[in-house]
Amino acid sequence: MRIAVIGSGAVGCYYGAKLVEDGHDVHFMMRRDLDAVRQRGLRIHSVEGDLHLERVQVYARSQEIGPVDLVICALKATAMDVAEKLIRPCVAEHTRLVVMMNGLGLEERFAAWIAPERIFGGLAFVCLNRGEPGVVYHLGYGRLAIGHFQDDLAQAEEIADLFRKARLDVQVRPSLRQARWEKLMWNIPFSSLAVTAGGVPTDEILNDAGLRALAENLMVETGRAGNADGADIDVETMSTRMLANTASMGAYRPSMLVDYEQKNPLEVEAILGEPVRRARALGVNVPYIESQYHLIAYLDRRNRMLPG
Amino acid sequence: MRIAVIGSGAVGCYYGAKLVEDGHDVHFMMRRDLDAVRQRGLRIHSVEGDLHLERVQVYARSQEIGPVDLVICALKATAMDVAEKLIRPCVAEHTRLVVMMNGLGLEERFAAWIAPERIFGGLAFVCLNRGEPGVVYHLGYGRLAIGHFQDDLAQAEEIADLFRKARLDVQVRPSLRQARWEKLMWNIPFSSLAVTAGGVPTDEILNDAGLRALAENLMVETGRAGNADGADIDVETMSTRMLANTASMGAYRPSMLVDYEQKNPLEVEAILGEPVRRARALGVNVPYIESQYHLIAYLDRRNRMLPG
Repeated sequence: MRIAVIGSGAVGCYYGAKLVEDGHDVHFMMRRDLDAVRQRGLRIHSVEGDLHLERVQVYARSQEIGPVDLVICALKATAMDVAEKLIRPCVAEHTRLVVMMNGLGLEERFAAWIAPERIFGGLAFVCLNRGEPGVVYHLGYGRLAIGHFQDDLAQAEEIADLFRKARLDVQVRPSLRQARWEKLMWNIPFSSLAVTAGGVPTDEILNDAGLRALAENLMVETGRAGNADGADIDVETMSTRMLANTASMGAYRPSMLVDYEQKNPLEVEAILGEPVRRARALGVNVPYIESQYHLIAYLDRRNRMLPG
Repeated sequence: MRIAVIGSGAVGCYYGAKLVEDGHDVHFMMRRDLDAVRQRGLRIHSVEGDLHLERVQVYARSQEIGPVDLVICALKATAMDVAEKLIRPCVAEHTRLVVMMNGLGLEERFAAWIAPERIFGGLAFVCLNRGEPGVVYHLGYGRLAIGHFQDDLAQAEEIADLFRKARLDVQVRPSLRQARWEKLMWNIPFSSLAVTAGGVPTDEILNDAGLRALAENLMVETGRAGNADGADIDVETMSTRMLANTASMGAYRPSMLVDYEQKNPLEVEAILGEPVRRARALGVNVPYIESQYHLIAYLDRRNRMLPG
């Protein structure tokens, strides 16, 4: 299958590399790592065994890729305003789009210009960090959850099969909305507290009784907001499982923390702002999330204004 | 009157100096500034006119002071565990105590070893910052609210008169508990956000829409918790007034922020922890305060562990 990976950070490179390995015709649009990957290929240092693709089809502009069968959009949510411009050159009548991004309300925005029946959400439950240019560190997990924007299960299974054949652990989600909220149950507490607690990895959050209590409150509040928004999450069970999973991650640095330290813009609206607005529209109070939202939004702006 | 000021930071020095000026026999127990004040006296740079006391009775240990008529305890709330040891040498049968400290639950702890009818609360609504040793900057305000621990108005008036004669703006509060909660309506939002938003003065909090919304939510939540605890605060009116007052302060750095920057212990339990615990005991949810509490408690511990 002819595939374009638009936005080749850690997530795009990792899943794209798996598809290359499975024999697909994969084209990566990337910025930071372009020259490095052209010269030395793409290297995934993985807990499941390293992978080195010596020759990778990489491009600076999606116009050079042209129409494909499948677009994997792995841009940062902060690039949402330019996503259409970047993706459109790859989109033909039949092209399908997997939105492999964090946060809420993204598929909705693509649906403004791509037929909704061709839109999927891809949720990566994976611990990845970018290394030096052309190198990705895969620290654990890797499960991919796939949902269809209109919850068409047959179509979701097709996309899931593509990734399964590439030897990935894939799960089809009957409700994409629920899958998004469930993922937020992890992202909201750990991404935000990692930053607001002064730059701490996940194990530090779990080891401090107060931060852990906050993480749990954020998680439960997120699950309840999701349920008010039409999900059907068993919040207690899910929280218990997620906290146990997080404990097994060790000292993981969420991408929001890595971005903060590198003074990159944070995915604050997709991960925090949109959930707060949606909850508010539904008349649900989310004071814990709101507290993190306003702090992170401010810290993000300030961080990028300060020198060095 | 023979008076001991125990804990002579900005607040102790400012109000103590006013009493010296009024002719009282004031004895200051101080640490950091001891040598400087012995050599050069005490200097208050004030928006209301500077004040320089050339000779001040200062001591390193309260044993050197001995029994007095009135103790003003202006220790940091973080020194509460040593307060009894420091104050006891100054306490005779008739000695009265004004607890001029921030936070909740402090008079209660003194009442364990001083007769409750001799305990008063002093709430300083004043913008002070410590300068170089022996120097205090008075940036604005100065009103002192006095309440009696058992709400004995006649006694509160007596103490208030003492300060009034020293040309201070003094208000007697019929309910000390309400006065404490009202002061927390300012301290909780501005002290905590100044730290958790990355080190920002009060004007910055008011100028950022998100932080301002958080400050308002914290303020209202505090007022409501206070009312559940027996206060009778008109939360809306009080909030509006406090926000307007804060706007007129300009770029004020709350003492919690100054302490954080100097890696001093923060008054986190008196200002945030005790209100959270009291609200919880009353069955009142305070998620905004709780969020700040756990973040500040963590940031405080971490701050003091990190080098330089």
